[in-house]
Amino acid sequence: MREVAVLGVGQTKFGELWDRSFREIGIEAGLQSLVDAKLSSADLGALFLGNMASGSLISQEHIAPLILDYAGLAGRHLPAVRVEGGGASGALALHQGYLAVASGLYDYVVVGGAEKLTDVPDATAADISSSAADHEWEVVFGATLPALWALMARRHMHLYGTTREQLAAVPVHAHDMAGKNPNAHYRNKLTIEQVLGAGPVAEPLGVLDCAPFSDGAAAVVLGPLEEARRHTDTPIRIAASQVACDTIALQNRQEFTTLESTVVAARHAFAQARRAPRDVRVAEIHDAYSISALMALEDLGFVEKGRAGAEFASGRFGRDGPLTVNPSGGLKAQGRPFGAVGVAQVVEIVRQLRGEAKDRQVDGASFGLAHDVGGTGATSVVHLLERTN
Amino acid sequence: MREVAVLGVGQTKFGELWDRSFREIGIEAGLQSLVDAKLSSADLGALFLGNMASGSLISQEHIAPLILDYAGLAGRHLPAVRVEGGGASGALALHQGYLAVASGLYDYVVVGGAEKLTDVPDATAADISSSAADHEWEVVFGATLPALWALMARRHMHLYGTTREQLAAVPVHAHDMAGKNPNAHYRNKLTIEQVLGAGPVAEPLGVLDCAPFSDGAAAVVLGPLEEARRHTDTPIRIAASQVACDTIALQNRQEFTTLESTVVAARHAFAQARRAPRDVRVAEIHDAYSISALMALEDLGFVEKGRAGAEFASGRFGRDGPLTVNPSGGLKAQGRPFGAVGVAQVVEIVRQLRGEAKDRQVDGASFGLAHDVGGTGATSVVHLLERTN
Repeated sequence: MREVAVLGVGQTKFGELWDRSFREIGIEAGLQSLVDAKLSSADLGALFLGNMASGSLISQEHIAPLILDYAGLAGRHLPAVRVEGGGASGALALHQGYLAVASGLYDYVVVGGAEKLTDVPDATAADISSSAADHEWEVVFGATLPALWALMARRHMHLYGTTREQLAAVPVHAHDMAGKNPNAHYRNKLTIEQVLGAGPVAEPLGVLDCAPFSDGAAAVVLGPLEEARRHTDTPIRIAASQVACDTIALQNRQEFTTLESTVVAARHAFAQARRAPRDVRVAEIHDAYSISALMALEDLGFVEKGRAGAEFASGRFGRDGPLTVNPSGGLKAQGRPFGAVGVAQVVEIVRQLRGEAKDRQVDGASFGLAHDVGGTGATSVVHLLERTN
Repeated sequence: MREVAVLGVGQTKFGELWDRSFREIGIEAGLQSLVDAKLSSADLGALFLGNMASGSLISQEHIAPLILDYAGLAGRHLPAVRVEGGGASGALALHQGYLAVASGLYDYVVVGGAEKLTDVPDATAADISSSAADHEWEVVFGATLPALWALMARRHMHLYGTTREQLAAVPVHAHDMAGKNPNAHYRNKLTIEQVLGAGPVAEPLGVLDCAPFSDGAAAVVLGPLEEARRHTDTPIRIAASQVACDTIALQNRQEFTTLESTVVAARHAFAQARRAPRDVRVAEIHDAYSISALMALEDLGFVEKGRAGAEFASGRFGRDGPLTVNPSGGLKAQGRPFGAVGVAQVVEIVRQLRGEAKDRQVDGASFGLAHDVGGTGATSVVHLLERTN
């Protein structure tokens, strides 16, 4: 199997991009990543695109060749493949791009993620976000995606004594980080009081515990590590790319304060990279809801099960700690364009490992992790990335 | 790159399966393929699922882990990935499964394709089928998928003298073949007169020139060729797996009596396999509309451009000819559950190459082709399959 490296990255602003179409944002991110990789489109072998719900959102399926086409590449008749796994679509697309280069059938590929959520009313976007849970056995009974995560939060509070204030520390951290990210959907500061005082979505989760619906796109260029130095002085090796799945519905799990899919994907990823959680200096993790981030820290092996609330509230995961979490602002504050998220996480980690993250640079970052989740954890994807010089 | 073989196949009946859910048909095909491969689910490494529009059709995205879950495999936390490319979704999923095994990261994978089209009204299914064309520049102006293929048919008639009767020979052939396929949606015989007399959909195409909306699922098990003999006496090698794309909208093409995506995918596939079109004894090709099959025969290199109408009407592609086309009955008569089609084509070719196609067995079949198309050809996928003993 060939070693694979990230050679270029690109990303649009995340937010309410009412004046820009799905195809426009998809192309912007893709072309940025090609320029960044110093690659001409003539070198490109394929496109893999992560997107969750373009059929429901913009009545358009078959979007991978559409993006290729509007990027001016239709004449080369390259393969273009869309990959979907709820909110994990972007990271799954990266896994497919990784396999494509690792197999040797393709040399250079672009992996993009894009979603246009604000062309429909918020209530419709909320319905569509819930289509990543079990429609037949959860959603039709009113158990929407935030309601299901709220169940997990309640159970975590019950079992481990996690407090409402500890949950609220997650969005406060996210907005604090996003303040230095020009691409972020929300850059305003939040206080614990504001989070606690915000209207309820599904108790204990309030409006400010839930990531927003955003438009946005991100892209990375992958290629063989052995040729990476022709394109960049700081090639970033994909040390591991692992996917794991679980039941689509919460009720079929043994317990739900852990995402087994994350536990397994992380275990496989650290085994593939021959590294341990303590080696990670910077991580982008899934924080679609406050509880998601706490569970992720535990399931990825960064803290003991049940301890994430207290550890997070202590400020341990800030910019100066041994492990900096979500320097981009995460899904909560950078934004949550479903299919773009998993790719954007990797864009941020690559920028951090290259030392190109400007105001939000984490010191001494040479090994990083990206963690993307679909629905209530029926899919988890973990990527480990390493600076090779 | 490792050589990849098909070790097992499975398929449900295609048709109006009103008493069965999406998850039920997906599981039936998958389990059949595992049994056929003499593989326990404990050997399995991943699932790749082709599906076009479950979000719009059954309000359910994130369906790959759902199928894995309902197959009883959630406890193993295997990776499960959905792939989408309009009507080519199934063949694209097969390409991803092929890359997964070829890369060496996975040993045994299931590739499934499934679609449940009859849970919505036909008019809704028609709308959804058109979401594989360009929504913004074609569909909103009334250019639905059959209307676009009708334009191609008119142009083919104008340029090459293809006749209405020659087009009608395509569904007549399809129904004739499907008469021997117990899984087919339609097994009744058709006459040229019936096809010509059927109500118009988009002239020159009538109702009987258009493949139906079907429910159905199909699956194959892939593994490394070097281990294939442990599972089967007749391993079928994937000699080539190639994808090519083109503009999403017809108006942006140089001309539209050829699908350049098919021409390129076929050229790459024959180069990868070091074989030529004349080596193919049996082929499953895209015949969603009568004109689709004629263009495919030309674009795949089986007949000279412009000659397919005459050649097809001569009966050359029947069971006893040098090249038998669509022994399953094709999309027209076996049925057209979008995301399942590309996988079902490969199931049929594998059965033919193994000599297990019963009443519809094609004599001397040792090398076959499967050709799947999305929309109006923004995606084409070509697989070449070879019996290795």
